[in-house]
Amino acid sequence: MGDEIPPPVDQLAAVSLTSDESSSSTVQKARFSDRIRIQSILVRPDGGAGLAGQKVRISGWVKTGREQGKGAFAFLEVNDGSCPANLQVMVDSSVSDLSKLIATGTCVTVDGVLKLPPEGKGTKQKIELSVVEVVDVGTVDPGKYPIPKTKLTLERLREFLHLRARTNSISAIARIRHALAMATHTFFDEEGFLYVQTPIITTSDCEGAGEMFQVTTLISTTEKLERELIENPPPTEADVEAARVVVKERGGAVAELKAAKASKEAIAASVAELNDAKTHLARTEERSRLKPGLPKVDGKIDYSQDFFGRQAFLTVSGQLQVETYACGLSDVYTFGPTFRAENSHTSRHLAEFWMVEPELAFADLEDDMNCAEAYVKYMCKWLLEKRYDDMELMAKNFDKGCIDRLKLVASTPFGRLTYTEAIKILEEAVAKGKKFDNDVEWGIDLASEHERYLTEVVFQKPLIVYNYPKGIKAFYMRLNDDGKTVAAMDVLVPKVGELIGGSQREERIDVIMERLEEIGLPVEPYEWYLDLRRYGTAKHSGFGLGFERMVLFATGMDNIRDVIPFPRYPGRADL
Amino acid sequence: MGDEIPPPVDQLAAVSLTSDESSSSTVQKARFSDRIRIQSILVRPDGGAGLAGQKVRISGWVKTGREQGKGAFAFLEVNDGSCPANLQVMVDSSVSDLSKLIATGTCVTVDGVLKLPPEGKGTKQKIELSVVEVVDVGTVDPGKYPIPKTKLTLERLREFLHLRARTNSISAIARIRHALAMATHTFFDEEGFLYVQTPIITTSDCEGAGEMFQVTTLISTTEKLERELIENPPPTEADVEAARVVVKERGGAVAELKAAKASKEAIAASVAELNDAKTHLARTEERSRLKPGLPKVDGKIDYSQDFFGRQAFLTVSGQLQVETYACGLSDVYTFGPTFRAENSHTSRHLAEFWMVEPELAFADLEDDMNCAEAYVKYMCKWLLEKRYDDMELMAKNFDKGCIDRLKLVASTPFGRLTYTEAIKILEEAVAKGKKFDNDVEWGIDLASEHERYLTEVVFQKPLIVYNYPKGIKAFYMRLNDDGKTVAAMDVLVPKVGELIGGSQREERIDVIMERLEEIGLPVEPYEWYLDLRRYGTAKHSGFGLGFERMVLFATGMDNIRDVIPFPRYPGRADL
Repeated sequence: MGDEIPPPVDQLAAVSLTSDESSSSTVQKARFSDRIRIQSILVRPDGGAGLAGQKVRISGWVKTGREQGKGAFAFLEVNDGSCPANLQVMVDSSVSDLSKLIATGTCVTVDGVLKLPPEGKGTKQKIELSVVEVVDVGTVDPGKYPIPKTKLTLERLREFLHLRARTNSISAIARIRHALAMATHTFFDEEGFLYVQTPIITTSDCEGAGEMFQVTTLISTTEKLERELIENPPPTEADVEAARVVVKERGGAVAELKAAKASKEAIAASVAELNDAKTHLARTEERSRLKPGLPKVDGKIDYSQDFFGRQAFLTVSGQLQVETYACGLSDVYTFGPTFRAENSHTSRHLAEFWMVEPELAFADLEDDMNCAEAYVKYMCKWLLEKRYDDMELMAKNFDKGCIDRLKLVASTPFGRLTYTEAIKILEEAVAKGKKFDNDVEWGIDLASEHERYLTEVVFQKPLIVYNYPKGIKAFYMRLNDDGKTVAAMDVLVPKVGELIGGSQREERIDVIMERLEEIGLPVEPYEWYLDLRRYGTAKHSGFGLGFERMVLFATGMDNIRDVIPFPRYPGRADL
Repeated sequence: MGDEIPPPVDQLAAVSLTSDESSSSTVQKARFSDRIRIQSILVRPDGGAGLAGQKVRISGWVKTGREQGKGAFAFLEVNDGSCPANLQVMVDSSVSDLSKLIATGTCVTVDGVLKLPPEGKGTKQKIELSVVEVVDVGTVDPGKYPIPKTKLTLERLREFLHLRARTNSISAIARIRHALAMATHTFFDEEGFLYVQTPIITTSDCEGAGEMFQVTTLISTTEKLERELIENPPPTEADVEAARVVVKERGGAVAELKAAKASKEAIAASVAELNDAKTHLARTEERSRLKPGLPKVDGKIDYSQDFFGRQAFLTVSGQLQVETYACGLSDVYTFGPTFRAENSHTSRHLAEFWMVEPELAFADLEDDMNCAEAYVKYMCKWLLEKRYDDMELMAKNFDKGCIDRLKLVASTPFGRLTYTEAIKILEEAVAKGKKFDNDVEWGIDLASEHERYLTEVVFQKPLIVYNYPKGIKAFYMRLNDDGKTVAAMDVLVPKVGELIGGSQREERIDVIMERLEEIGLPVEPYEWYLDLRRYGTAKHSGFGLGFERMVLFATGMDNIRDVIPFPRYPGRADL
C-alpha cells in the first residue's frame, strides 16, 4: 500500500465526480467540501464492495481506534454523521504517527484507496479504506475527553449537550428527527397546505393552555436605572426645594428689571437665566421621581414601559393565530417552537418543544381525523423508507418493537370511537377487575393510563377518540347537536398515548359567545378571534401534534429530553 | 341552468376523483374536504376551459360581487387562497338570495357546473362556475367589515393582522414565503444536511450580536407574592418576638416537669407543645423575611429563583449551538425564529424574525460561498417554477423588476471580490465624485449604501465580498494568514443589500483563545464552544440568511413588517 503513488489531492474528487453518479462504481462527493460522505460509500446495496479501487478523501471522527501488528498499523472506525455505520480505515505506521489517531473523538481527514477486506476475516465490513495520506487531524487527549469510548448513560450525556451529537444514539435520533421534519413539510406541501410562521412572542393567551413565560426588557432597564441611581444618586427633596428657590429668585429678578424698565438686553439675559433655572428644576423634579424597582402605576407594573408597550409572553400554541390564515388561505400549518412554564420534571414534558399545527378550512371533524391519520401514516412510511438503518440501530439499542410499531401504524386503519364508547369500554374493563389509578366515569378527562390501555391493550393499534364532553374542552371547539359534547378528537398511539389533539372549530358567532360566557372568559381579548366568525365565517378544523412525542413514538426512546437537541426544563437551559 | 338537476352533493367529489387526476378533463379534490381548490380549476395551461361541463363544489371568500340584470343574477369573484386568481361564479336569483352573497368578504360554498363564458364578452376568464346550489354562506355586514373592497394601504392593513391574509398582496406573499421555506428544506435535504432545531431560550450570548429579550417567570411569582403579602401581611418583629417567648416558656415548662419527675405522658404532652411552638416560630421567621419586589442576593437579582435557575434570554442566533451538531454530524442547518430587543423603527428590522443557518463541516470559506450561492439560486429558480403567478401579481402591484431580478440571480454567477478590493472600488468612486454619507477607508464596516452601490451600480448583480478586517468581525471567524483579515463573507444582492453573512470558523484552539483575549471577552461562558476545538476539532464554515430579507428581495416589498405574518417591533405585538 505504501508503494502506491496517490493521485494529487485536487484530482481525487474530480475522479469521482466526472463519471455518472448513479453508476455503482463511483461515489458522490459532498457538493460543498472536498470529501466524500461515508454514507455514499457504505449505504449501497453492495455495502460499498463495488467501489473497491476507488481513490477517495473522507473525513470524520474516530469511534474506536486500535494499533495492531505491534504498532505496524492501526484500524480506525470513522463516522461522519451521514449514516449510523462507520467506515473501517487502515493506516500504516509509515504513513502517520498512529498514536495521534487512535483516541476516540479524534477528527481525521484522510486520502486513501477503497479495498475489499481480506477474506475470512469474519468482519461485517464489505469495504475498507487503506490510507495513503493523513491530510488533517484534530487530536483528543483521551484522559480529558468527556465522552470516551465507554458508554455513558443518556442521563449523563445530558451534561454534555455540546458533545452528545457525536454518540451513536443521539446522532441516529437527529437523523430520524430530520426525516420526520422533512416528511412533515413534504406531506403538507403535497396536500396544498401553506407553511405559516405564527408568532413566538404573543400578547394573546391560547385559552390558558398552560403557564406562560414572560418576555421582557423591563428587568434590564430597571437594573440599568438602579446602577445609575447608585452612581449618581437622585436629588433629595432639599435639592428640589433649592432648585425651586433659584427659579423664584430669578423670577423676582426678571420682574424687578421689568419694573425698573431695564434695557431689553438686560431683561433678555435675565429671562434666559430664569429659563435655565426652570429647566434645571424640571430635570431635578423628574430625576427625584426615579425609584429603584420595576416601574409601577397604581401599584401595578407599568407595562407601557416594556418593549411592546404591554405584557408579552412566549406562545403556548399557534392555533388561534394560524386560524386567521386558514380563514383566507384555506389550508395552512405551523411548525414551530411552543412553551410551557410548568414545573414539570417528568420524562414527557419540556419547557420548550416543537408543535405541528395544521388548520383546514371547509373541513369538518371527519376531514380533520382523515388528515391526522394520513399525516401520521405518511411520517411512518417516510421513516421506514429513508432511515431504516437508524431505525435498526434504535431497535437494537433501545426498543426492539419500534420498527414493527412503525409498520403497524403505517399500514393499519386507525380505530375510531366516540368518547362515550371509550368510557363504556373502560367501565366494562373496571367491572371485570381492571384497576386504574383514576376513576372512570363519563365526563372525566381520559388519563394517560386509560389512553394507553385502549390503544395498547384493547385495540392494539392507533385509535381516534372523538366527541368529548364540552366541560373538559376549550371554548373554541364546535358544540355538537347533543349540546353536551364538542367535535374534538385525540389520536392515541401505542407507547406514547396521546399524540395529536384536534377539533372542528366553532364557526357560529352566537354559539361561541355563549360558550365564552358559560366558561366565564372575558370577550375583549378574543375580539380579533371572534371577527373571523363575524365576517365571512367558514367551517374549519385543525389539530396539533407534539413533534417530540412523535420522535419518542418513532424511536422508542423513554425520555423526551433525549429527542430534542437542546432540552429546556425547570432548572436547566444549557448553552 | 336552474332546470338542471344537480347530482347529490356527496357524488360531486366522487365524480372528479374517480377519473385519472392527470387527465385534462378532471380536477383534483382537496383530499381533506369535500370542495375542489380553485387552483385545480384555474392553474392549468388552458385556464380551466377543458373542464367545461364538470360539476364541482368550491368554497372561498368573495372578493367582489355585483348584481346584474336588475337583480336577476349575480357575479361573484371568489378566491380560496390556493392561487392569486379568482373564480368567476354566477348565481341566479332563483337559486339564492343574492343580497347575502355579494358583500366583499362573504364566505361561500357552492355547487355548480363549470361553463365557458359567453364569447365576445371580452373577459379574461377561460371558465366560470354556474351555481346550482348555495351550500353554505358566512355573511358580512359591509358597513362593519374592516377591510372592504376599497384598497387599504399596507400600513393600515397592519392594524388588522387577523384579516389581512384575505387580501391579494398579503396572500401572495404568504404563498411566496411558503415556497421559499419549502425550497430551503428541499435544498438542504437534497444536499445531505440535517435540520437541527437550536434552542429559542438560551443562556448563551452569541457574542453580543444584539440586545436580548429576557425570558422569566420571576415577575409573575413576585406579583403573586406581593398580592399574597397584601392579603395576608407578613409577621412583624413583635410577632416573631412573641413566638420566641412562647418557645421559651414552653421550654421552661418541659424543664420544670422533668425536674419534678412528672409522668412520661405529662412530659411527652409538654414536649409536643414545645415542638408546636418551635414550628410556629420557624414559620413566622420565614414569613417575616418575605419582601415585595424581585428576589435579591447581595443587591443583585437572585436568578437562582428563576425558572431555569439562571438568567435566560431569547436567542439572537443558533450558530454557536448548531456548530456542536456540525462537529459530529457534518452538515446541518437551523431554520427558526431569532430575536433582537433593539429599539429599531426602520422598515428593515423586526424584533422577531426567521433565520436559516447552515453549518458545514470539512468546508472552508470557498465551500461556504459556493453553498450560499447555490442556495440562493435554488430559491430563485424554485419560485420562478412554482409561484410565477404570484410573482406576476407582485410585479404588477409592487415592483416591476422583481421577476427579472429573480432570473438574474438564478442565472448569473455571483461576483466575488475581497473586502480590500471592494474598498478600492469605493475609494475610486469617491475620487471620481461619488458622495456617500459614510466615509470610505480600509477598516470600516461597509454601510448599506456602500453595499448597494457595489451590487446595484458597479456590478449590477449579486456579489460576495470576503476577507474582512478582523476588527469589525466576531471572535469565532477564522484568522487569515495575513493576521489582519478573517475568512468572513457577505452576500450582497440588488434591492436588499446584505442578504447573507457567513464565515469559516476558527478551529484552532490557541488562535481562538488569543482572539477572545484580544477582544476582551471572558472565556468561561464559551468553554463548551472551545471544547469543540479541544476535542477532535474540524475545519468548518457556515452562514446565516435572514429569511424575511429573502422574502423582501423576492417580492420587491419595501417594509419587512409586510412579509412576516405577525410582525413584532417596538410597541407592537398584536395577537
